[in-house]
Amino acid sequence: MKIDVLSLFPEMFTGVLGSSILKKAAEKEAVSYQIINFRDFSNNKHQSVDDYPYGGGAGMVLKPQPIFDAVDHLKEQSQTKPRVILLCPQGEQYTQQKAEEFAKESHLIFICGHYEGYDERIREHVVTDEISIGDYILTGGELGAMVMIDSIVRLIPGVLGNDDSPIQDSYSTGLLEHPHYTRPADFRGLKVPDVLLSGNHQKIHEWRESESLNRTKTRRPDLYDKYLRSKNKK
Amino acid sequence: MKIDVLSLFPEMFTGVLGSSILKKAAEKEAVSYQIINFRDFSNNKHQSVDDYPYGGGAGMVLKPQPIFDAVDHLKEQSQTKPRVILLCPQGEQYTQQKAEEFAKESHLIFICGHYEGYDERIREHVVTDEISIGDYILTGGELGAMVMIDSIVRLIPGVLGNDDSPIQDSYSTGLLEHPHYTRPADFRGLKVPDVLLSGNHQKIHEWRESESLNRTKTRRPDLYDKYLRSKNKK
Repeated sequence: MKIDVLSLFPEMFTGVLGSSILKKAAEKEAVSYQIINFRDFSNNKHQSVDDYPYGGGAGMVLKPQPIFDAVDHLKEQSQTKPRVILLCPQGEQYTQQKAEEFAKESHLIFICGHYEGYDERIREHVVTDEISIGDYILTGGELGAMVMIDSIVRLIPGVLGNDDSPIQDSYSTGLLEHPHYTRPADFRGLKVPDVLLSGNHQKIHEWRESESLNRTKTRRPDLYDKYLRSKNKK
Repeated sequence: MKIDVLSLFPEMFTGVLGSSILKKAAEKEAVSYQIINFRDFSNNKHQSVDDYPYGGGAGMVLKPQPIFDAVDHLKEQSQTKPRVILLCPQGEQYTQQKAEEFAKESHLIFICGHYEGYDERIREHVVTDEISIGDYILTGGELGAMVMIDSIVRLIPGVLGNDDSPIQDSYSTGLLEHPHYTRPADFRGLKVPDVLLSGNHQKIHEWRESESLNRTKTRRPDLYDKYLRSKNKK
């Protein structure tokens, strides 16, 4: 998979793409990253990328030209039709299902604004997907792009080794995980539940299932309802 | 505000905390960051931080000792009672309201696991808040902590200068933003709506309000319903 990111703050990506699974995935050549400062594509002599909004108002708006030209340039290098993803609060809410969908693509381009709004023509004519990672305000799209990249790259076959696998993926079962315990059995007087030390696998299984159901019901009634509906359908 | 982060991958934070607003906030001394590798607190001669789960199963579980001791150490240095935040899929869904709540605190401690599950005693006896930034699976809690830090620090008074202010915060009005346009009025034949060039401020205001309402209704019926309910209450 080829991942291109357009950002005015390329240095933000170094630590995250250079560590852990995202680094290993690039070393294994399962993915290649390219972080592009779209200011380099500005055809203005001051290399400006933003301007005042038509109709007035506070703040600045990202101009169409640098982003249109940067994406054109990346598309020319591409054998396939890339998905062009805009990180913004107006976007579709990001979910594990979306991550699985993007993990099947061969080329993704992320557009990250910072402070500014985007000229609407970028949304309408360049972008294929507008995504929001959650209902909170971030300084820019960079962290959203990193979150998406992490969730997508770990799904590419061969990227996660056995050692890296999470205990159990919440969301893949539709329920929240049951509690986990490890050594020591008594830590500062806090004890591991007896059932987990019993060696009775049937009882351990039942306890975990019941904890998982209860935790989901209490903490995430929305997921619990979804789980019940999907179970009743079967 | 003092922000401590416990992570096995401290190098992941360099780019994000060293750029843009988060860097400026530290320079202005509105916030100080400390990234701590909790492996340094392991009292085991191999400095191990995880172990096999009681009751069997795949994956590893983070042991209580290194995290209990690291948080004790940080609390000893603190004049106030810090909030101790665990990033995990089982946590409460993160929202702008939560960001505003955390922005009032003077000391936050983030605990970031990576691949592994957490021993339940950490959740029960160390952590004050379990948070999930969204319904998708990430390799670790580090990106979640960065997302939270970005959304919180920008709310600290004095951190955002006038130049940095976003055009308009979605979520603060409860509606998605209206479209923005900037120069040129005609880009590759794609034109700015006439109303924005009209100079008629009343019409511009009406157009923006109507676009904002329509966009919210179409894209985020959940936010639209919430907006209508809050409006009817007034």
